[in-house]
Amino acid sequence: MDPEAFLDMANQVIKLKMFPYFDIAHSLLAALAVREDLGSNAQSFSRKHPLACWLSTMLVIFSGGMVANALLGEPILAPLKNTPQLLVGTVVWYLVFYTPFDIGYKFGKFLPIKVVASAMKEIYRAKKVYDGVSHAAKLYPNAWIIMIIIGTLKGNGAGFTKLLERLIRGAWTPTAMEFMQPSFYTKASLLASIIFVLDKKTDWISAPHALVYFGIVIFLVYFKLSSILLGIHDPFLPFENLFSAIFFGGIWDSLAKILGRGQAKEGEVKDSKKSN
Amino acid sequence: MDPEAFLDMANQVIKLKMFPYFDIAHSLLAALAVREDLGSNAQSFSRKHPLACWLSTMLVIFSGGMVANALLGEPILAPLKNTPQLLVGTVVWYLVFYTPFDIGYKFGKFLPIKVVASAMKEIYRAKKVYDGVSHAAKLYPNAWIIMIIIGTLKGNGAGFTKLLERLIRGAWTPTAMEFMQPSFYTKASLLASIIFVLDKKTDWISAPHALVYFGIVIFLVYFKLSSILLGIHDPFLPFENLFSAIFFGGIWDSLAKILGRGQAKEGEVKDSKKSN
Amino acid sequence: MDPEAFLDMANQVIKLKMFPYFDIAHSLLAALAVREDLGSNAQSFSRKHPLACWLSTMLVIFSGGMVANALLGEPILAPLKNTPQLLVGTVVWYLVFYTPFDIGYKFGKFLPIKVVASAMKEIYRAKKVYDGVSHAAKLYPNAWIIMIIIGTLKGNGAGFTKLLERLIRGAWTPTAMEFMQPSFYTKASLLASIIFVLDKKTDWISAPHALVYFGIVIFLVYFKLSSILLGIHDPFLPFENLFSAIFFGGIWDSLAKILGRGQAKEGEVKDSKKSN
Repeated sequence: MDPEAFLDMANQVIKLKMFPYFDIAHSLLAALAVREDLGSNAQSFSRKHPLACWLSTMLVIFSGGMVANALLGEPILAPLKNTPQLLVGTVVWYLVFYTPFDIGYKFGKFLPIKVVASAMKEIYRAKKVYDGVSHAAKLYPNAWIIMIIIGTLKGNGAGFTKLLERLIRGAWTPTAMEFMQPSFYTKASLLASIIFVLDKKTDWISAPHALVYFGIVIFLVYFKLSSILLGIHDPFLPFENLFSAIFFGGIWDSLAKILGRGQAKEGEVKDSKKSN
Repeated sequence: MDPEAFLDMANQVIKLKMFPYFDIAHSLLAALAVREDLGSNAQSFSRKHPLACWLSTMLVIFSGGMVANALLGEPILAPLKNTPQLLVGTVVWYLVFYTPFDIGYKFGKFLPIKVVASAMKEIYRAKKVYDGVSHAAKLYPNAWIIMIIIGTLKGNGAGFTKLLERLIRGAWTPTAMEFMQPSFYTKASLLASIIFVLDKKTDWISAPHALVYFGIVIFLVYFKLSSILLGIHDPFLPFENLFSAIFFGGIWDSLAKILGRGQAKEGEVKDSKKSN
Repeated sequence: MDPEAFLDMANQVIKLKMFPYFDIAHSLLAALAVREDLGSNAQSFSRKHPLACWLSTMLVIFSGGMVANALLGEPILAPLKNTPQLLVGTVVWYLVFYTPFDIGYKFGKFLPIKVVASAMKEIYRAKKVYDGVSHAAKLYPNAWIIMIIIGTLKGNGAGFTKLLERLIRGAWTPTAMEFMQPSFYTKASLLASIIFVLDKKTDWISAPHALVYFGIVIFLVYFKLSSILLGIHDPFLPFENLFSAIFFGGIWDSLAKILGRGQAKEGEVKDSKKSN
């Protein structure tokens, strides 16, 4: 592929307009996620508690912006002032939950539709991470950690509001904490945030910004499609295990075990007993 | 009744000063609500945990302002800067919980006192809803949904902070979520907010503002008194059922059932099993 | 001791630089507290969930500032912009959890180290309470209650974020609410806040400010050391019991019991049954 053409394409991806098509894809996947999360209750729950159903879907759709605003001292409700986006979300929610004979839901679950929507959502995610990092960088130009946190939250806000979202629906699952078992989306958003911060704040990345951005978009879309089509869920796992072994005690614990101290082993046994 | 005199009266209701009498009524009902919520433990709880008791009562009294501030990025503690209101709340809390031989509590529970305080509280509620809508309209002149949310929260803040209020007292009831089974006060505040927004932002309501406001006050007081004296708890129910049947799947689900698909029925059975 | 020299010393305590030694002591005790709270799972938990472990430790370290900011409408993440403090916290966290053969943890638990760190933390606490009161006084010059709340939260933020901190680690303990059984640190921070407010806003305290501040430092350090070395955990208890007996029903309840009403007694029996 011609590098010139590639850069051109990258520049166009950066300028992509998100409204309305990408918002539709994002809202569709959010509503489907809420419905899946409700399980076999979805049908009756949506009939009995339409307000809680609507609110939790809106929370999933606007989660990134709301959580980031909450942490930056900005109005939590501000994302709702975007009326067209709110209307799109509400219409999609209605179609997924209340269409006769569940046509809307079945349409959304149809594989080709889901694949296209997922790919669009990943493009949207890259934009959100980038916007989050840029916004935090304006407020705190020297606080890398704040940029990274905001970028990650914007990228996968729904993961972090899951507890609240379920609480709105009257369900409380304290052990389903995103921080405990970060999903692939959280890890990918974290990585993307770090790369954007490095790109913005240092000279370590010499590629033009459009290429960096485009690379992240490709990375996100590629792994999302692998996950749907091939069932590969977490490409980070091997790296994490290596990292854990070196820095978070893996090697030393093994050494201690061999030396007969067995401290780590004991702790593990207790832990696994508890989780059983 | 003479329309002139009626309008005059409406104008006077709008200008009613809230402090201190309406604040006393509001605080009294808040403290009574906390005490009822504690059930038979109230006596011993208030002796063992006066701090938690005071904090949760204050949270109920100032809930509307605090929740609205939290969502609008304003200081959550700001409502407490109103020192006279805080003192009134504290004195009322003390009288309800700690007077010898429970005189304060018995006085507050005395039906005529409760009826008058409840009526005053509804007048206060109308004012709070109106202030909430006006405040949100200043911040986000085009975001109707934000005005409605803030108006509703100001009108029935205590409903939405119930989980937090109980948590302060060490009790956690995730299923008692206001969104799941909105109370009459939430629905009435929602309706009042919508009417105030329409009155403010459109020409659809041709009546003078004072009359609209007065109408809402009468509506709130009337149904509150019916609820206490006649036991009518939710006049919205028939309208909701109709609305649900038309828009939230009622009719289509019935049709689907008749056609032998039985999807909704199945879901419902599972749901009711779970809740048992 | 020469009063001149004493005042000189007090003036020097006020001007003490906190970074980096006091921050190290504070972070060390925070990391140790997280590790103790994890109990026998600490070893395996820190290996399996390093992100949750790090986040909850950071929450404990920065809790005071974050909670105070949240309640004053300021950015919750702002305390993290202090990069050197964040790095100190991260290094200490790493040493406590991941050093080979647990050298870091054992070092931190070594009594002389713990005593020195605890004393330094109390000096830090006095400064935080004072800064909290001053900051709130700038925002709300007439709202004493807000100054006292912010001072207390800055002094013992970790007590109030305990629920959230455990939630990050997937554990939910709603009954461990600080308001229910305030710890000595909360009570001491509350007392210190009240004294600072009186010193700032009234003429009731005629001693120079440096002496008031120094007195609070001595009080905090003295009782912390008594607690570690002598096992005296709550010097406020007798005063509280007296206060409760006079103002929170103690005497009246006894009188009522004697008069044969027995209301309080009954409630207590029910309460103790529930807690069993």
